[in-house]
Parts: sequence; structure tokens; C-alpha cells
Amino acid sequence: MPIAVRRLALALMLAPACPLALAQATMPARTMQQVLEASKPGDWRALDPRNTLYLDLAAGRVVIELAEAYAPLHAANLRTFAREHYFDGLAILRVQDNFVTQWGDPDAGEKDKARDFGKASRTLAPEFERGITKDLAFTRLPDGDVYAPEVGFSDGMPVARDPKAGKTWLAHCYGMVGAGRDNGADTGSGAELYVVIGQEPRQLDRNIALVGRVVQGMELLASLPRGTGPLGFYEDAGQRLPITSVRLAAEVPEAERTPLEVLRTDTPTFAALVESRRNRRDDWYKVPAGKIGLCNVPLPVRKPPVPAH
Amino acid sequence: MPIAVRRLALALMLAPACPLALAQATMPARTMQQVLEASKPGDWRALDPRNTLYLDLAAGRVVIELAEAYAPLHAANLRTFAREHYFDGLAILRVQDNFVTQWGDPDAGEKDKARDFGKASRTLAPEFERGITKDLAFTRLPDGDVYAPEVGFSDGMPVARDPKAGKTWLAHCYGMVGAGRDNGADTGSGAELYVVIGQEPRQLDRNIALVGRVVQGMELLASLPRGTGPLGFYEDAGQRLPITSVRLAAEVPEAERTPLEVLRTDTPTFAALVESRRNRRDDWYKVPAGKIGLCNVPLPVRKPPVPAH
Repeated sequence: MPIAVRRLALALMLAPACPLALAQATMPARTMQQVLEASKPGDWRALDPRNTLYLDLAAGRVVIELAEAYAPLHAANLRTFAREHYFDGLAILRVQDNFVTQWGDPDAGEKDKARDFGKASRTLAPEFERGITKDLAFTRLPDGDVYAPEVGFSDGMPVARDPKAGKTWLAHCYGMVGAGRDNGADTGSGAELYVVIGQEPRQLDRNIALVGRVVQGMELLASLPRGTGPLGFYEDAGQRLPITSVRLAAEVPEAERTPLEVLRTDTPTFAALVESRRNRRDDWYKVPAGKIGLCNVPLPVRKPPVPAH
Repeated sequence: MPIAVRRLALALMLAPACPLALAQATMPARTMQQVLEASKPGDWRALDPRNTLYLDLAAGRVVIELAEAYAPLHAANLRTFAREHYFDGLAILRVQDNFVTQWGDPDAGEKDKARDFGKASRTLAPEFERGITKDLAFTRLPDGDVYAPEVGFSDGMPVARDPKAGKTWLAHCYGMVGAGRDNGADTGSGAELYVVIGQEPRQLDRNIALVGRVVQGMELLASLPRGTGPLGFYEDAGQRLPITSVRLAAEVPEAERTPLEVLRTDTPTFAALVESRRNRRDDWYKVPAGKIGLCNVPLPVRKPPVPAH
């Protein structure tokens, strides 16, 4: 929290709740910290290595969970790109302040120099939205949204819904990863990816395929120097940040993996967490908002606890 | 826009509009670029040097416009701090990813080492909200808001309103600058300032005094390495970024000023700009959002045009 004296900073991590927001939340007011401390092992799920990409940079690792239920074609193509080592040695090309960081092949537009796609597809059917089905998880938030009739979470992903149209889609929140495309709706292959680094650019929703979200390492992508060319592209090749590699976690030796657990978003614990963030009643806050926007809900991540012996 | 090939990037700066959103917008569909190109000199206003702070860093200048109408006590105290050269040689202390960058006195908590406040006040009456009055500019946005009954712009500042309570307040959008405080509501003096560098932390609205917004130079504050201590504080003194100086523009020799104009938010041109962003119909966009959130509205800034002779 913004405060004047460093020593008091820690007090502001407390986030007490007032009773209940989501239907399934029936616990007394608690802080987010208390909610997480009281969580049970079943409130968490381990990232599935077959559904997790590691974007390795010299500065560290970015862990991306793929949104298989919303972008299965893109997820499959990204697994192929990873298997082909397509991204290794490519670069971060663009950082536009309050918008996106984007990476891919600097020579993508040059016929003779562009990197080969190998077995990956050059085009994919658009996965900008999908049908609402009964098997699709959805924990609805109570406070509405400027852009969509309903918003909430689906297996840890922020999503929007239009029940009348029977459609649902991933929402452009901070940390969401998408597949850049040209003007044609089917031109996004996953060969060029972007991540949201600012205020939710929700105008992109339903216009481009989001493919997942960054679960760890956002600071590595958000703190890069902004590009000075149009749209934040780096003007000099020397400004580009090289990508060491992109791998599917399942194809990385187990000792080199980054095991992480994320809080399940279909649990009473998550509902209590949302409520603790809607109404913050610690000593610092004077007026609890009583509301929360989709992209303001934190999604806790942790290292798997060491089993007791 | 996120796209696959660099050469096509420019096409995405186009942002055609469909007819009309705000009551005063009665022009045909245009792109944002077309709206700005058609703007008249009276659509712009020069920053008032008595109301503009320069935060100078080794990497460049951050220009902050003070929100005199919403935080007059804080604005006055900040002018005093600038006059006292209070911030010169102090530092950026905290960068918390997707939240805030904060600067002030690293030794503020240590009695013997803390920098003297000079003629500046140590405490100020809270300026978290104010009464709605007729003389206060307000251009309402048409699409609602999760957190407040009404939102819009007041002399270039994003604001929220509760007409029933007769209150209005500055909103925590990207680039907004606030005065850190401790738990006491009157403990924010402006000696420690923060700027929003991520998704709108609207839960802070009405809990702390916003004092203005960054008009130019946000990238200098948003691209800094994130602190690894609690709340993003830098753990080692060596990580802190020194502040060269903070000055009121009026007290800087004219040759050293940064003359800027901002688009007036009480004009049909601004209404047309909002509309051009609610509905983007260039070749890239497939589904215009038809909506816009308060913190998604861009606020154009330009160098004053050279007068024709």
C-alpha cells in the first residue's frame, strides 16, 4: 500500500473481510492472509506440466499456464513450437507502456530470414470466444463489469460471459498472454505472443486469442525498457531482449521444473478471498470499496508445501 | 496492438468510431487520429506552470499536473516542498509490480537522519473526496463503472461521483499520483508520493489523497526494476533510484521548461475521442467493445504547435 513510512508497510498486507459476497462464502470476516493461512490442501491445484510453458530469459523464468479449455488449438500449437525450440534465440520485440510486452521472431516479415515453423501451423481457426457449456467451470463475481454482462473465473482464468449469446471468453487482465495476429482473424499462430502489462485492455476481448496467463515472473516482462518506436517496438536490434528458450514443463527434466500451486477458483476459500478484497477493513483503509473488478482479484500462487514426515 | 508482423503494426493505431456516445458528440464516425487531426487550438490547453511539477531523474523528466481542484492543500504543500528542494537527492524507494512506484526520504522513519520539512506541513487534512459543486467540470462517461455510480473527467483528471452523497473524488487510474500516508487519515503530507503503474487500484479511492497525474514520462517510473522486499520496497539502498530534483515549472527558467498541451476534456473533440475508443472499427478489430472504462480513456498530450508566420 502507498504509505509514508517503510516500517508500517507490512501492516497493509492485512486485508480483513466483511461477511460474504459470493453465494458459497459463508465464513466470518477475515483478511486475505487469514483466508490463505486457513486454506486446505484441496483448495490448491498443482500446475499441470503438460499445460505449462516456461519462458526462460537471462534474468529468470516466466511461468505461463495455458488456457486449454478456451484456446485448445493455440495451446497445441504452442506445445509444438516449444518442442521445435522455435522461440529459442528469438527476442522480446516490443514493450508499449501501459499495454503489452510482445515477443517473437524479429525477422518474421522477411521471407528468407524468418524462422521455420517446423510442424507448427501458420494459421489457426480463431479462438476468440467459445460456447458456454455445463462442464466449464465458472465462479461469478458479484459486482458487474463495464464490458460484459457477467465476469468471473474459470479454472484460474479471468473470463467474461454473455449468457444470452451463449458465449464466454478470456478477459484481457494484467498478466494474460495472447497470440498476436495480423488483420486476418486466422493469422494468429502463437509464433508471436504478448502479455498485458498495464490497465486491462478489454477492447481486445473477443478480437484475439488469449492463450493463458503468467503465473510467475510477470515482473520480468513488465519492468523492461519501453520501446521508442511506433507501438513500443524497439527501434534498434540491440535493444531487443533475447529469449533463452521456451519449453513445455512436461518436457523439462523434473529437477529443472518450477513446481507451483495456484488457488482453485471454484472453492469457498477463493470466494472468501474475493470478499476479503472487496472490503478491506484493516487499520489503514477508511472506506472499503465494497466492490471489486475482475482484473483486480489476486490469484495466489505458492510453492507446494513440503509434506510433513 | 498485438499483432504478428511488425510492418503492419501502424495500421492498428487507427481507431475508427461509430456514431456517438456522449451527448455532445454529433460528428460522424472517425478514428482517434482523425479526431485529433481535426482538433482546433481551443480544444487544447497549456499546462499551467504554477500547477505543474517536474520530477527530474537521470533518465529524464516526469511531468506531473497537480489536481488543484481536488487536493488544494496537498498541491500547496508540494509547491512548498519543491521550493525547499525537499526531494532533491531523495530516491525512488519502492516499485511493486502491477501496483505503484513510490518515492521519498529513505530515512523518513529515523528521527536524526530524516530530512527537514522546512516550511512544509507534516500533516494535512484529508483530501480524499470533495463536494460536488456547479463550478466543477465534469464530463460523464456513458458506460458505468464497477466502483462508483458515475465516472468521467474533470479538467483532465479521471474522477468518480456519488450524486446522492454529493461527493466526488479522483480515481486511481494508471499514472495518477497520490500522497502516501500512515494509518492516520491526516498523515499524508506529500513528502512521500506514489504513482499507479498497473491495473487501476480503485480500492484506494476515497482512502488517500490523489494529488495529480503524470502527463509525460510514465515509462520512466513504470519500467523500473521491481523491489524484492515486502510491498516492493528495495531491500538494498543501492537499488534505490536517486531523484535529481523536483521543481514547480513556474520556478524553472523558461528555457528549461517542458511546454505541453493536453486535450481539454470538456469539448466535443474529447467526446468524439471517447467514442472513437469505445468502438474501434479499423480492419484489425472484429468486434468493437461498444464500451469503455474510465481508466481506459487516453488523454492526449502534445507539444504546443509552432505558430505559423
